This record gives sequence, C-alpha cells and structure tokens, in this order.
Amino acid sequence: MDSKLIGSCIFGQSGGPTAVINASAYGVIRTALDCDEITKVYGAAHGIRGVLDDKLYIMDEEDPEELKLLLHTPSSELGSCRYKIADPDEDDTDFKRILEIFKKYDVRYFFYNGGNDSMDTCNKISRYMESVGYTCRVMGVPKTIDNDLFGTDHCPGFASAAKYIATSCMEINKDARVYDNGMITIIEIMGRHAGWLAGSAALATAFGSGPDLVYLPECDFDMDKFLADIDCIYEKTGKVLVAVSEGIHYADGSFVSEAKTSATDGFGHAQLGGLAAMLADVVKRHTGAKVRGIELSLLQRCGAHLASATDIDEAYKAGKEAVEQAINGVTGKMIAFRREYIDGQYSCKIELLPLSQVANYEKKVPAEWINKEENGVKQEFIDYVLPLIQGEPVLPLEQSMPRYARLKKVLAR
Amino acid sequence: MDSKLIGSCIFGQSGGPTAVINASAYGVIRTALDCDEITKVYGAAHGIRGVLDDKLYIMDEEDPEELKLLLHTPSSELGSCRYKIADPDEDDTDFKRILEIFKKYDVRYFFYNGGNDSMDTCNKISRYMESVGYTCRVMGVPKTIDNDLFGTDHCPGFASAAKYIATSCMEINKDARVYDNGMITIIEIMGRHAGWLAGSAALATAFGSGPDLVYLPECDFDMDKFLADIDCIYEKTGKVLVAVSEGIHYADGSFVSEAKTSATDGFGHAQLGGLAAMLADVVKRHTGAKVRGIELSLLQRCGAHLASATDIDEAYKAGKEAVEQAINGVTGKMIAFRREYIDGQYSCKIELLPLSQVANYEKKVPAEWINKEENGVKQEFIDYVLPLIQGEPVLPLEQSMPRYARLKKVLAR
Repeated sequence: MDSKLIGSCIFGQSGGPTAVINASAYGVIRTALDCDEITKVYGAAHGIRGVLDDKLYIMDEEDPEELKLLLHTPSSELGSCRYKIADPDEDDTDFKRILEIFKKYDVRYFFYNGGNDSMDTCNKISRYMESVGYTCRVMGVPKTIDNDLFGTDHCPGFASAAKYIATSCMEINKDARVYDNGMITIIEIMGRHAGWLAGSAALATAFGSGPDLVYLPECDFDMDKFLADIDCIYEKTGKVLVAVSEGIHYADGSFVSEAKTSATDGFGHAQLGGLAAMLADVVKRHTGAKVRGIELSLLQRCGAHLASATDIDEAYKAGKEAVEQAINGVTGKMIAFRREYIDGQYSCKIELLPLSQVANYEKKVPAEWINKEENGVKQEFIDYVLPLIQGEPVLPLEQSMPRYARLKKVLAR
Repeated sequence: MDSKLIGSCIFGQSGGPTAVINASAYGVIRTALDCDEITKVYGAAHGIRGVLDDKLYIMDEEDPEELKLLLHTPSSELGSCRYKIADPDEDDTDFKRILEIFKKYDVRYFFYNGGNDSMDTCNKISRYMESVGYTCRVMGVPKTIDNDLFGTDHCPGFASAAKYIATSCMEINKDARVYDNGMITIIEIMGRHAGWLAGSAALATAFGSGPDLVYLPECDFDMDKFLADIDCIYEKTGKVLVAVSEGIHYADGSFVSEAKTSATDGFGHAQLGGLAAMLADVVKRHTGAKVRGIELSLLQRCGAHLASATDIDEAYKAGKEAVEQAINGVTGKMIAFRREYIDGQYSCKIELLPLSQVANYEKKVPAEWINKEENGVKQEFIDYVLPLIQGEPVLPLEQSMPRYARLKKVLAR
C-alpha cells in the first residue's frame, strides 16, 4: 500500500437521517481538516447526487465552532438522497461522471455515510476506481436507525432512536392509563424489515412503564392472534398498550399496513393514515373499546434532544476512524463495531469490514431473543440495547431551544 | 374567617394529563403533610370519581423520596377523570355523597387540580358545602396544556407542552428538508378551541428551524387559501412545513377534522387517522407532491423529559400556595399567575381568583398576535411563550431511562 496519498476528500450522507449522522460527519470532517494528507474537504450536497451534479460544499470555509455543533444537530446537514446507483458492469455513466468530478477536484479520499444501499454505492465506486486505475481510498461509515447492517454489532443512529422510542413509550404508557375507563393504545414504530426499533419499546416495560405487547417483523403476523392477545389483557386490566413495527406482515409476506382487510374497509378504499390508525380501527371494531393509534413517525429518527451520548460518541469515532484508516492506506472497508465486556463494562471496539461483505445483507433480531408467544422480546434483547442508550449529552441551547449548526455551505467552483 | 381549621384534606387530579400536573400534586401533598392543621392527606383515585367511590389513597404512607419524584413524573399519577358533575340546584345526589365522604374522613380541605371543567366542579363543591353549613376550604389548582383558563397569565402544563412542540418541530423541520425532492409535511397539534399550542410551533421558526405556516382555531379556516399558501412556498423552495391546530374549523364552525370533503372521500366513509392524515391527503391530491402528516398526539402532553423547569417550578408553587392560602383561611379561589418583568426579567406572581369567575370561560390567542394572512403568529406571541419554557430540569434517571415515582397507593378504609 502507498502510505502517503495526498489529495482532497469528499464526504457524503445518504439514506434516511438519524439523530447522530451529523456526529459521524463531524468525525470525518474535523479529522480530515486536521490531517496533512488531505488538502481540501468537500461535503457533497445530497450524497452521491451532489457528486454527480458537481455540488460540493467547501468544509474548510466553515467556522470550527459551528462545525462542532454538528455533534448535536439531527438529520443529514449536507442533505441526503435515495439514489440507487447502477452496476458499473451494466451502466458506467454515473461512474464516469464521478471519476470526472474526482479528477476535477483531485479527490483521493471518498467517505460515504449510510445504510445498506449506501455501502453498496460505496463498494461499486471503490471497485470502479480500482478497475480504471484511479487511486482513491473509499471508506464506508455505517448509519441506520434500523440497525440492520450486516457484520457490525450495532449501527450509529440506532441507539438514539431506541432511546427516543423507549422514553416516549414510558411517557405514553403513563398517559394512556390515566382515566378510569377502558383504553387501548397502539404505537407504530419504524423498521420495515427488522424489529430492532419496535423491540426497543420493551425497554420501557423493563423500566416499569411500557407496552404489554410488542410485534416484530421477524415473525408472521396473525390478526386473530393479535386480537386474542389484546382481549386477554383488556379483560384483566381494561388498559392495553401495544407496540408494532411498521413492517409486520402476514405469513404470505404482504405488509399488514398495505392489506385491505374486510374489517377495515370492505370497499377497498385507500386508507388514510398509517398502520397504527388501521390497526386501531380493527381493534375498535373488535373490542368496542376506546382505541388510539400513535405513529412515532419522523420524531423517532431525528430526536437529537434524547440522543444517547454513547451513540454520539461512537458515531463520531466511526467517522474519525474512517479518515485515519484511509490515511494509513486502508480502502474498500466499512467501519464496524464489535462489542466487548471488560470487567462487566460495555466497550465498543472498531473493526474493518470489506464493503463487498456488508452491502445488501440485512441483520434481523435473532429468533431466540423473541418470546415464544411472538408478542414480546426476552431479556437478551434488553441486555443488548441497554448499554447502547447510556449517557445524556450536554445539549447546546439558546434560550432553552436547541442550537443547531449553521453552516455557510460555500459551493466549490 | 376562622384561622385554625383542623382536619384532613383530599387532593384530586382531573382532566387531560400534563407533563407537570404531578409537580402540582407534589406541591399540595408535601405542603399538606408538613403542616399541623392537616391531620391526614388523601389522594383521590381518578379525581372526583375517587371521592364518590370512596377510593382514597393515604399519602402519609408514601415514601418521601418517591413522592418527590412526582416532580418529574408525567401524567396524573393518582388517575384522572372527565366526570361532569351536576348543578347542585338541579341534582344534589353527587354532592350529598361528597359530603358523606368528607364527614367520614373529617375532610376540611379540598384541593382540585384541573382545567375549566374541574374549576367548575370545584366551584360547585365550594358553594354546596357553604350552603349546607359544612366548613371546608376549597381551592382550585390550575392545569391545562391548552392554556385557555380565564384570569391567569398562563397555566401550568402549557409551557412544557409548548417546549415539546417547539423542539419537536425544530427536529422534524431538519428531517423533512433532507432529500433533494419536493416534500410537504403537516404537523397536527392539540388545542380544540385555543391556538396556544399550535402557535408555539412558531418558536421553532424563530430559532431557525420550524414551520412555514401555522393555522390556529382562532381564525376561520379556508381550504382554498390553505392550498394557495402551500403552493406559494412549494413553488419557491420545494419544501413546506405546516403546523395546524386540531381545532381548525370552517367559517360555519364545523371542524375541518370532521368534514367530509369531496377531495378526501366522496363516499362519506369514515376517515381513519386524524386531521394531519386527512389534510396530507388533500394536499397530495392538489400538489402531486410527497406529503406526510404527523400527529404529535399524546406525546406533546406527557413529554416530561422535555419539561420546562420554569413550568415545573410554577406548577409546584401553585400546589404549595393553594395549601398555604387555605390554611390561612382562604376558600373558593383558584391559584392564578400574573406576569411581571423586573429589570426586564420575567417573574411570576401568584394571585387568587374567585372560582366562580374562572369556571367555564375560555382564553384565546389575542387576534392582534396573529398575522394578517392568518397563517402565522407575530413576535408578541413568541415574547409571551419564550420566558415560560426556560430551564432544563435535572431528570432522575435509572440507566439512562426515566425514573418515575412508584407510589404504594394504600387505600383508606
């Protein structure tokens, strides 16, 4: 490996935003600004789209104090995209354009922060640059609230979303049990294919105020069993709190959220509202009880005010390490986490994973962490999540309102 | 006035829960436990229903440290009710029963914590006890996230909900502008008749990341104007964030949330989901853009983790003052707040308001605080809310999860 590669770098953010993706951005940008090998630090507007469109912000022009506020600024500050890049063997148009931009700005380092699809993009760029003999070190920085990236113990972004979900469920549970009449509340939680987030609602229960029932997309959903589960608790206590993953599906694979059940609308009219509203309607018809559906929606992924300090710290380190490794000659890798317990204390070690290994695989909640009734998670799940949500960051405030980074975003010409 | 009245007291919580209603509970209970005149402190289960049902918890039996955690425990810990008591002149059944319970437990002090309806209940009990010659001092402690109680500058509970709404809007705004495609987001906020909460979303905008448009129930809603407002911003920026009060209504007084517009469902089928989902559907059909509806739902009223320290402090003081005033001979009054500025610094003074004056009136957002276009609030509104949301409480945590009060709730026999 050539150990001293001089040139500029591009950093991009991709996929759904998280509460801490900007902490990784700060890890990359700050480290890149501080190292001699990197001559200029560009931030791509809306991920790879910004590269294709030649829309790059010059990070060197930003006020260091504002950059530091990225640690506590939710969502993707440089903008994100969901652009699916072609396979270079089939269509290399985009890659030729990326190479053109890399040459224009003498880009020798490319850092991409995202989930499964982004690691796939990263991998393709890495392979293409190698195939055309353009020296460029490409590193993936993981991010996803869904926590479904393969090969890493967990992903930056997940823990803060989990903490938001668990805390909110504790609060909702307190509220939903306040009256002396019957009440059933259904909370819809993100996670299309993996139940890490919905399962995190069970943390609330573990701490004394949470859902009675939790349904994950790892199990086939059965509406009759769901209603029987609710009946059983409702008859005993008159109050039921249910957490469901947006990704719950029937045995045939069809999403419950997309099904037109006769119980909800015999005329096949499009449903307004999401899964929570639909399930609330089904449960209301079945039980006759007062039922409320609550969708945590975007709040769960951008709740920076409830971020885990552990998550912020790990997100930052993932970004920092990606730059340091690339400077040291590493390329084609994603930063991954390995969990260790030292004297019983959680510790997070950084590993490098070949991009080709991680791309396009999905990590699900292990079957043995889900209870036999398939309506809750076991202690193993709680033990997995709990260390990740630890610590409360000191949030920068301005008259008790969040103070986010205000970047100049000076465009490169 | 007889100045030394010895006997027990009952405290009850009523109406919708808030993030700080238990801080008022702690103010009442702690002060009552500490004073010589009050022989026993009872907490009514589910407000006045607990009195009628003879279901009273003995607060003297609780661990003082657990009681103190009420300061940061959301929702009504003793349980709430929405029981509308009769007029004693028309039907005195309930009042005879209340008198029976008061005599059974030698109750000489009654403290009731709630909104408009609760102050009405309080007032009726006060009048009835006077009319039958039973000596009992009755005090109202205000509470409502809606902030619509007459005669007080603001109400405990409002500021914490406002802070939750403003902070969440800042986060949602960051998230909703992240992609490079068009996006319209509609946030539904509580407040059936007054726009204090929806207006608080504008705090987010004042701090650099909030809604473009805010609609309050103080103005008649016009769907065509609403769509034109959105078009105007969407055409310029491709991103629109809208905050609407759940209470917006057409000129004829009908709620938008209950209207069956031809644009949403020509067949008059019941809507699933609430106003946000319905408006999102209308806007989607009109603009063709990606539109997301978000309902802040219960989260906004039970968000103790984002409570205003000022609100907690004032809620506590309202409860404490109610007891101290009653001990000093006052009865038939509600604790109210008067705002003062001392050397430019916000200060909150406590006043006493006759219960008969406050009951059943609603305080709305002044017309002169709403902009001419009726799609936003003016600086006067921001200046009103901002001092109320100041300060972050030190939250009791247990492994980074909220630690709420765990009461024994020993029933009186």
